Amino acid sequence: MKLLGPIAITLSLSGAAAVAQTESPLERAAPALAAYDAEIVEGNLWQREGLSPRDRSIVTVAALIGAGKTELQPNEFARALDNGVTPAELSGIITHLAFYAGWNNAVEASQYAAALYDERGIAAADLPAADAELLPLDQEAEDSRQTNVQQNFGETSQGVVDFTQDPLFLDLWLRPELAPRDRSLVTVSSLVANGQAAQVTYHLNRAMDNGLTREEASEALTQLAFYANWPNVFSALPVFKDVFASREG
Amino acid sequence: MKLLGPIAITLSLSGAAAVAQTESPLERAAPALAAYDAEIVEGNLWQREGLSPRDRSIVTVAALIGAGKTELQPNEFARALDNGVTPAELSGIITHLAFYAGWNNAVEASQYAAALYDERGIAAADLPAADAELLPLDQEAEDSRQTNVQQNFGETSQGVVDFTQDPLFLDLWLRPELAPRDRSLVTVSSLVANGQAAQVTYHLNRAMDNGLTREEASEALTQLAFYANWPNVFSALPVFKDVFASREG
Amino acid sequence: MKLLGPIAITLSLSGAAAVAQTESPLERAAPALAAYDAEIVEGNLWQREGLSPRDRSIVTVAALIGAGKTELQPNEFARALDNGVTPAELSGIITHLAFYAGWNNAVEASQYAAALYDERGIAAADLPAADAELLPLDQEAEDSRQTNVQQNFGETSQGVVDFTQDPLFLDLWLRPELAPRDRSLVTVSSLVANGQAAQVTYHLNRAMDNGLTREEASEALTQLAFYANWPNVFSALPVFKDVFASREG
Repeated sequence: MKLLGPIAITLSLSGAAAVAQTESPLERAAPALAAYDAEIVEGNLWQREGLSPRDRSIVTVAALIGAGKTELQPNEFARALDNGVTPAELSGIITHLAFYAGWNNAVEASQYAAALYDERGIAAADLPAADAELLPLDQEAEDSRQTNVQQNFGETSQGVVDFTQDPLFLDLWLRPELAPRDRSLVTVSSLVANGQAAQVTYHLNRAMDNGLTREEASEALTQLAFYANWPNVFSALPVFKDVFASREG
Repeated sequence: MKLLGPIAITLSLSGAAAVAQTESPLERAAPALAAYDAEIVEGNLWQREGLSPRDRSIVTVAALIGAGKTELQPNEFARALDNGVTPAELSGIITHLAFYAGWNNAVEASQYAAALYDERGIAAADLPAADAELLPLDQEAEDSRQTNVQQNFGETSQGVVDFTQDPLFLDLWLRPELAPRDRSLVTVSSLVANGQAAQVTYHLNRAMDNGLTREEASEALTQLAFYANWPNVFSALPVFKDVFASREG
Repeated sequence: MKLLGPIAITLSLSGAAAVAQTESPLERAAPALAAYDAEIVEGNLWQREGLSPRDRSIVTVAALIGAGKTELQPNEFARALDNGVTPAELSGIITHLAFYAGWNNAVEASQYAAALYDERGIAAADLPAADAELLPLDQEAEDSRQTNVQQNFGETSQGVVDFTQDPLFLDLWLRPELAPRDRSLVTVSSLVANGQAAQVTYHLNRAMDNGLTREEASEALTQLAFYANWPNVFSALPVFKDVFASREG
């Protein structure tokens, strides 16, 4: 959706405030859901162990941007910063999801992030510049990945194969503002939120290679039940189960 | 999307009214589609037998909230009330879909419902309170479901398994504002609208156990062809076919 | 999302202009992504050979409408006209996607198209009227399609089967404002953008029967990597590969 400029927003907020000071639309239209939200999501889910509040915010923000769900983005972007996600990391999540969830979702999310950065006085110098010193490349793993994709799909779409190598794996994945483990957590969360279970095996393995623990992956699914949705999590469960089993040897 | 407050909305409506009194954007930009809409959707689909207007509205509203499609929500929420869906039922649909289509979609929909309830003078007392006397539980069926899910996925994500039991099956599904048959119809409609064919088998069987007839399920798919989309309905057709066959013995 | 009326939009634009004259929200919040956008998407992707700028716009617009991604629609609708997509064709794309991506997405898109048509002084006479002389029907192919669908799914949902015949294949697909090859390109792009790989085989074959070359289909996937997203393109790659192989015989 389009963000309105400051003037329209001011009108909107003051207008809404004049009409209903205390009751949110959720409380007005769905009191039972407002109670679930207070008791189960805020009072239980976000307080659970097994995944840090910072990581819960990464999962939540990635699920919302990934699926193009904008309504909760302002609040959850703010909570992410409160939970210790840095502005540079949030910027990196948006950039990453331009590729994994499409350009439109990232451009849309950037408007909410820009408003939040303005509000909190976060300067451009605090955000990742376009030019950055890249993380070291695991050349062997990348050669293997590239050979595999080239052999499978080079004749189908050389353009996709080429852009997957560069910028995706030779640039985006090596940008320093997101640790590889966090980048993988963002990717897996977006895949689950979009019902893209077919792509989860590769990226969950990569996430765990990058340091995501089994307990964290399991709790990320719990967080996604609420912020992606139940059916997508149930379609992801067998994939997670197989990946966990395959890594136990 | 964000709803604007009353002032901005007033400006918007009066501004739009001043510019184009008679022609909708659909008539302006896509006259052929406006004709399909008038002749086939309004003049035929909504008039068909096999599924009551009330049930068509339940399917339509569930498809829109389920897939996070907001543009038609104001009109279709209003039509739902006109077709005999009660405000309490609409509130229950939104609450249900918070779990089956994600928190964001439900919070978003609650804004349109709140505006409609205000407009029609529907009081909080007409909406389901957070605390409610639950419908009786089929303990045997629930034990079987829980045992099955625990055995399959307890080691993968105990958190998902636990929240699926409570609040999902021990609370949400037992809330009285939606009859179980309607709750199932909402679930199946949202699954089809989200392309989640993998989860349809369980929920379509449950819907028919809860009283949805084969003819109604068949017509719900017809309604979903227009309000979800054709490809998702074609991916659901073989699943519906298999469920129908499996129940004939 | 809802378009605001002219007054709110005017406030918004002037308000935004007063605050930030030069920097877009994307540059503000995600400078690295803004650089990818300038260098790779604008500076490379749109300049590539293998698919004309007009066809790239058809793919892009279809992906955005298909997946209900509105943020980029105003700019990409305008670019489509600049690239030689006619207003009648854009109107036809919206009408087509009402069926292939759902009514809501088409109604939403029609608002952006209507605003663009107003802005560019495009008259109703330049847009396809509801009544049109249809393209000739390939009766044999249609009989085969209809017999196949009727046998497979007539007992599951006669309503879906009937509406698929008329208006879908006996009217929509024969409307003259979109060439069949372009209509197929729109369909395939929307399917990939929605992760509906299961429906791609039929429609990619139809697209190539209608004149889409293998090189164009391959480059359409490249365009979709950015405007749909990477995972959906990777799920479509094996389907494209199989279709290409099956046609080489």
